[in-house]
Amino acid sequence: MAVQTAETATNPTVDLGPAAALSCRECGHRVPLGPVFACEECFGPLEIAYDFSGYDTEELRKRIESGPANIWRYAPLLPVPSDVADKPNINPGWTKLVKADNLARELGVTGGLYVKDDSGNPTHSFKDRVVAQALEAARAFGFTTLSCSSTGNLAGAVGAAAARAGFRSCVFIPHDLEQGKVVMAAVYGGELIGIEGNYDDVNRFCSELIGDPAGEGWGFVNVNLRPYYAEGSKTLAYEICEQLGWRLPDQLVVPIASGSQLTKIDKGLRELIGLGLVEDRPYRIFGAQAEGCSPVSVAYKAGHDVVRPQKPNTIAKSLAIGNPADGPYVLDIARRTGGAVEDVTDEQVVDAIKLLARTEGIFAETAGGVTVGVTKKLIDSGLLDPSLTTVVLNTGDGLKTLDAVAGTGLTATIRPNLDSFREAGLAS
Amino acid sequence: MAVQTAETATNPTVDLGPAAALSCRECGHRVPLGPVFACEECFGPLEIAYDFSGYDTEELRKRIESGPANIWRYAPLLPVPSDVADKPNINPGWTKLVKADNLARELGVTGGLYVKDDSGNPTHSFKDRVVAQALEAARAFGFTTLSCSSTGNLAGAVGAAAARAGFRSCVFIPHDLEQGKVVMAAVYGGELIGIEGNYDDVNRFCSELIGDPAGEGWGFVNVNLRPYYAEGSKTLAYEICEQLGWRLPDQLVVPIASGSQLTKIDKGLRELIGLGLVEDRPYRIFGAQAEGCSPVSVAYKAGHDVVRPQKPNTIAKSLAIGNPADGPYVLDIARRTGGAVEDVTDEQVVDAIKLLARTEGIFAETAGGVTVGVTKKLIDSGLLDPSLTTVVLNTGDGLKTLDAVAGTGLTATIRPNLDSFREAGLAS
Repeated sequence: MAVQTAETATNPTVDLGPAAALSCRECGHRVPLGPVFACEECFGPLEIAYDFSGYDTEELRKRIESGPANIWRYAPLLPVPSDVADKPNINPGWTKLVKADNLARELGVTGGLYVKDDSGNPTHSFKDRVVAQALEAARAFGFTTLSCSSTGNLAGAVGAAAARAGFRSCVFIPHDLEQGKVVMAAVYGGELIGIEGNYDDVNRFCSELIGDPAGEGWGFVNVNLRPYYAEGSKTLAYEICEQLGWRLPDQLVVPIASGSQLTKIDKGLRELIGLGLVEDRPYRIFGAQAEGCSPVSVAYKAGHDVVRPQKPNTIAKSLAIGNPADGPYVLDIARRTGGAVEDVTDEQVVDAIKLLARTEGIFAETAGGVTVGVTKKLIDSGLLDPSLTTVVLNTGDGLKTLDAVAGTGLTATIRPNLDSFREAGLAS
Repeated sequence: MAVQTAETATNPTVDLGPAAALSCRECGHRVPLGPVFACEECFGPLEIAYDFSGYDTEELRKRIESGPANIWRYAPLLPVPSDVADKPNINPGWTKLVKADNLARELGVTGGLYVKDDSGNPTHSFKDRVVAQALEAARAFGFTTLSCSSTGNLAGAVGAAAARAGFRSCVFIPHDLEQGKVVMAAVYGGELIGIEGNYDDVNRFCSELIGDPAGEGWGFVNVNLRPYYAEGSKTLAYEICEQLGWRLPDQLVVPIASGSQLTKIDKGLRELIGLGLVEDRPYRIFGAQAEGCSPVSVAYKAGHDVVRPQKPNTIAKSLAIGNPADGPYVLDIARRTGGAVEDVTDEQVVDAIKLLARTEGIFAETAGGVTVGVTKKLIDSGLLDPSLTTVVLNTGDGLKTLDAVAGTGLTATIRPNLDSFREAGLAS
C-alpha cells in the first residue's frame, strides 16, 4: 500500500475499541485511524489517542481481572475491538513476574526485586506483544499480508502470528543470516526473502515497497502499522502493576533498542494512574543498553537532548539499533522520572545472563543480560536505590542466543564408576 | 542415599498434602511416604495413594479456579504441602490449550481440535511439571542435591528448578553430547558431569550412586523421587479439563517415552471423575511413538501385553526410550479406553512439525511432531474419530530441536530493489 495521507487512509467503520484517532507526538495534529505513521504536518511520529471517558475504575478493574490470561485482558485500554479475544491471534502476555529473592541477595536489593520474564511468550520474546497488536490493526484495515524486516525475534513473531490468523506473511532478512535464525523464522511456512545486502539495505528496500503498488495490501508491522504495533509494549506496564497487586513499582529497568518499549511502558503507567487503577506516586525508569550500541546512554551521560547514531557492535543483537527513533523521548523520561540510562560491556552481558540463570533458573537472551547487568552497575554506582521495589525486564529467551554463553560447559568428565566420581571431589 | 526400605525411609512429619502413602501398582502393598520407588514385596513400581476424602466438589472447584496460574492451583490433588505456592519453585503449568481450527481443517477434524502447548513452560518442556513435583518431595525429605541423568530437556528443567530453590544440582550426561544441549543445561550453574560412555552407562552409574554413601542426600528426580515426579503429569489432565470448561475431551493423543505421562494423564482424568469435577463419560487415549523407537506401538499392533525393548534410532530423542517402564500400562489404557498406539516415520515427524507451525504458529519439538503426525495417521486409518473433541499434546519447544527442520530456509533471494522483487513473483 502506498504511503497514505489521512484522507485516503480513513475508514470510518474501523472498530479499534477505545482508539479514537492518531495524534502527532510532536505537534498534536490529529488524523483518523488508518495505516499511517508520520504526521502530514510536521513528519513527527503518530501515536494512538484514546477515549477512556466513561470508564468506572472499579468496574474496569473487575473486567480486567476476569479477562483472559493474555494481553487481551487489557482490551479496554488497547487499539483493538472488544471481541479481540475471539479472533485467531497468538495471544501473548500475562507472562510471569518472578520475585527474584536469590538475585536480590546477590545484588543487595532489599526493597523487593522482580524479573518480568517475557521469554514465556509464544515465540519467546516480547515481540509477540507488539505483533499481536499490529495483526489486529491489519485485520481492521483489510490487509491480507503481514510483513517486516528483521534479523531475529520479529521474524518469528510475525511468521507465527500470520500463520495462526490465516494471513500471508512475507519477511525480509539479510540473505546471509545465520542458519539457526533462518530456521526459526522459516518454520512457520510464510515467505522468507533473503535480500542481497545488509540490514540497512533490507530496510531501505522495505520503505520502497511500502510506497509502491507492489506492496498493496501489505501491513508492515513496524512501519505503516507502527502506531498500533508500538502500543503492545504498554501491556508490560499493565501486567507488572496488576501482578504487584495494582501497585506501581518504584523502579523499572528497561532495555533500549528503538526506545519505543520504554516510552510505551511510561505511557502505560501514566494511563493506569489517570484511570485510578494505581495510586499516583513517583516511579523511576532506567534505560539499559550494551556498550557496543549505546547511543542513548552516551547522550544521557553527556547531558544531550539529541542522540548521535552509532554503528552497532555487540552480542546483544536484538538491541542493536544504532539510530533509535525514540531516543530523545527516552532521555526525557529517564530525566523526568529520576531514572538514568546506562550501558554494559558484552562480557558483563554474559556474566549477567549466567547470574540470572544461576540464581533464578531463568535463561535470558542477551537483552536480558543487558538489563540485569545494568541493574547491577546502577546499584554499584548508587543511581538505583536498592531499598526500593525494582522490576527488571527480560524480553527474550536464551535459547535464541545460545552463542553468547557457548563457553559454558561440563564441570567435570569422569568414567562411569564411583571411584572416578570420588576422585573428582563430587561426593556429598 | 542408599536404597531404603520403608522403615528407614519413613518420616512421620512429612507434609505432602493429600498424599497418604505409597502403594505398589502391582500388589497394592502400602508403605509410608519416603524416597523409595520399588515395592519391597514384589519390586513393582510404587505410586502415590491419596486421601481425597472430605473434599466438597464445588468448594474444591472454586479453590482451584481462584488459585495461581500454574500447577499449584491443583495443590489439593498433588503430593505437595498446601503452602507450596509460597516456596521457591519455577512454577510451571497453566500452559495454553490452543483451539487449532486451521489444523483441524487440514486434518478434517470437525469435533473441535486443541493443542495443549507445553512449550510455554519455564524451560520450555513438560519436564518442568514433573521436576517441580520432585523438588517439593526433595524438600520434604530433607535432600539438598537434585540430580538426574539426561540427554536433554530433563537436564535443563533440573538445573533451573534447583537454581531457583537454592539446591545443589548435579546432572549426569554422556560426555559427547552436542554442544548446544550442553549449554542449555550448563547455563544454570549447577554441576554438569560428562560420563565417558553412552546413555546406558550414565544410567547404570546413577543407579550405583543412589546405593552408595557418596550419593547421601541426593534426590534423583526420576529414580528415588520417581513416585512424586511422575505425578506432575497429572496436571496436564487437570488443565485440559479445566480449560475445556471442566469437561473431559473425547480423545487425547499423548506421546510415549517411558509411558509414565500417558498413564498419569489417565490417572488424573479418573481422579477428576471420582471427585465429581467432570461428568463421568468415556474418553479415549491414544499413544504416539516414532517408528525408530516404537516398542509400545509394535506390541499394541501385535496384540501383545508385554513390550519387547528396541534400540532407538529416531530424531525424536526426547521419546527415545527403548525399554519403556510403563509400556504395559499404556497398552492396557489404550485398549481399555478404546484408543490405540501408533507410530510415524522421522519424515512424517518433520512434516508434522511444519504443519503445526504453518497452521497454528506453534513451533513444536520433535515430540510434538510425533503426536501431530500420529493424529493425522490415526484419522486417515479411521481409528481416531474426527467428529469428536480431540486434544493433542505438544510437550516441548522447537528451539530445542532445530536440527530436525534444518532444511527449512529462504523462499527466495533477491537484490534490494522492486524489479528484483517483481521478477521473483512476490508482488501482491
